[in-house]
Amino acid sequence: MNIVITKIEKMSNKKPKIRLYLDDQINSGTVFLIEGNQGHYLVNVMRVKLGDYVIIFNGFDGEWLAEITKVGKGKAKITLREKVSEQKSDPDLWYLFAPIKKARIDYMVQKATEIGVSRIIPVLTERTNLDKIKFDKLLVNAIEAAEQSGRMTVPQIDDLLQLDKVLKDWPENRGLIFCDEAGDAIPMQEIKKSFDKWAVLIGPEGGFSPQEREFIRAHQNTVAITLGPRILRADTAAVAALSLWQSFLGDWAQ
Amino acid sequence: MNIVITKIEKMSNKKPKIRLYLDDQINSGTVFLIEGNQGHYLVNVMRVKLGDYVIIFNGFDGEWLAEITKVGKGKAKITLREKVSEQKSDPDLWYLFAPIKKARIDYMVQKATEIGVSRIIPVLTERTNLDKIKFDKLLVNAIEAAEQSGRMTVPQIDDLLQLDKVLKDWPENRGLIFCDEAGDAIPMQEIKKSFDKWAVLIGPEGGFSPQEREFIRAHQNTVAITLGPRILRADTAAVAALSLWQSFLGDWAQ
Repeated sequence: MNIVITKIEKMSNKKPKIRLYLDDQINSGTVFLIEGNQGHYLVNVMRVKLGDYVIIFNGFDGEWLAEITKVGKGKAKITLREKVSEQKSDPDLWYLFAPIKKARIDYMVQKATEIGVSRIIPVLTERTNLDKIKFDKLLVNAIEAAEQSGRMTVPQIDDLLQLDKVLKDWPENRGLIFCDEAGDAIPMQEIKKSFDKWAVLIGPEGGFSPQEREFIRAHQNTVAITLGPRILRADTAAVAALSLWQSFLGDWAQ
Repeated sequence: MNIVITKIEKMSNKKPKIRLYLDDQINSGTVFLIEGNQGHYLVNVMRVKLGDYVIIFNGFDGEWLAEITKVGKGKAKITLREKVSEQKSDPDLWYLFAPIKKARIDYMVQKATEIGVSRIIPVLTERTNLDKIKFDKLLVNAIEAAEQSGRMTVPQIDDLLQLDKVLKDWPENRGLIFCDEAGDAIPMQEIKKSFDKWAVLIGPEGGFSPQEREFIRAHQNTVAITLGPRILRADTAAVAALSLWQSFLGDWAQ
């Protein structure tokens, strides 16, 4: 413990600000080569020097201090030193959305990760005009957002799935919240049905088709909620609905 | 009333989708020339034809049907026909934010308008790197967002103000919610202080300076709230905080 305390004192009792996700096993003394996006970030953006410290997490083993032990062109070597935080999980919340345009997809993934979802599922709906997504790009967005937001986990990202297939295979114990403008949709705080777990579904710009709406509403796990009397864009509705879920059913209410 | 019913029947009992804000008096028979952004939207984007109907609102007199009575290059003439909705107000909520980059400012104004604020005040803080804003551009964004979201009002947009000046002249009966990461910040649903009216203050990316935080906290009208254990970007925090306010204190809970 002494080594850790000395290091933290050296940093004026503050945790390093740079956080990096590694999809790997973490042990004291292990050396990692950081390159690609993360290497660029470390060397060119944050301009780390030998002896600087960063925080490493892998989604399972908490947070670890790692020392910069080599700096190169757009890459660096780090040596794992000590564990400094126990693993903290994020809420078990699935987020389903209908992707429209590339810029919006990156945004949706970033925001959902910050707010704290565990799984992101892009769904194809009748009004979706995209037939494929760049999975790798979405994962990079999720990792960066997880690093910046202080999360110790990275949400699982699914490949594009047909909405009707997702609903057909839907797990019994998970409620599905979707935003609807019909008269019987309720405010999120009035949700009475209690499921073990939850998901939030955000439709495409322009909404679901009438048939899709019927199909979604007919599913026994769905709960229709209203987000007030004004019309929200899909990206606004996403952040609003996810934030409300965190406040009422997630970890924002402490 | 017969003329209105016939017109609505002609439109299959559906209200026109196109909504335009006019900063003017509204009376049956008045003719308006629609040009600029709105003219371009009508003629080039929505491709309106003679005899089409649009909805007009001015923030005071409800919604009115107006008929397209002339179509030109990027502009059109409309003739006001009949009132179809009584004026509906939007919640009295002030939204203060620290502008950073142009794209984000347009976004902040658009989202705040959709979610339903009555006044938008850009504030200069120590960490704001902008010293002026394009007021006209913000107003155009607010008007477009009001038109698209179904609002019958457009939020008031202030010019850039110094945060300390805003706080010095703060009205006694209005609470000021701000997002803080300190230990004693409470979830929005636990706000006990009751003010007649409210405002939400979103700090710049990177937060307030320590002196600013002390200054804000010292004000008798401020309430510090937390938005969960993860760090949110300023634009995420804005939509989250405004959505939560609408749910707990605004008109989302019906």
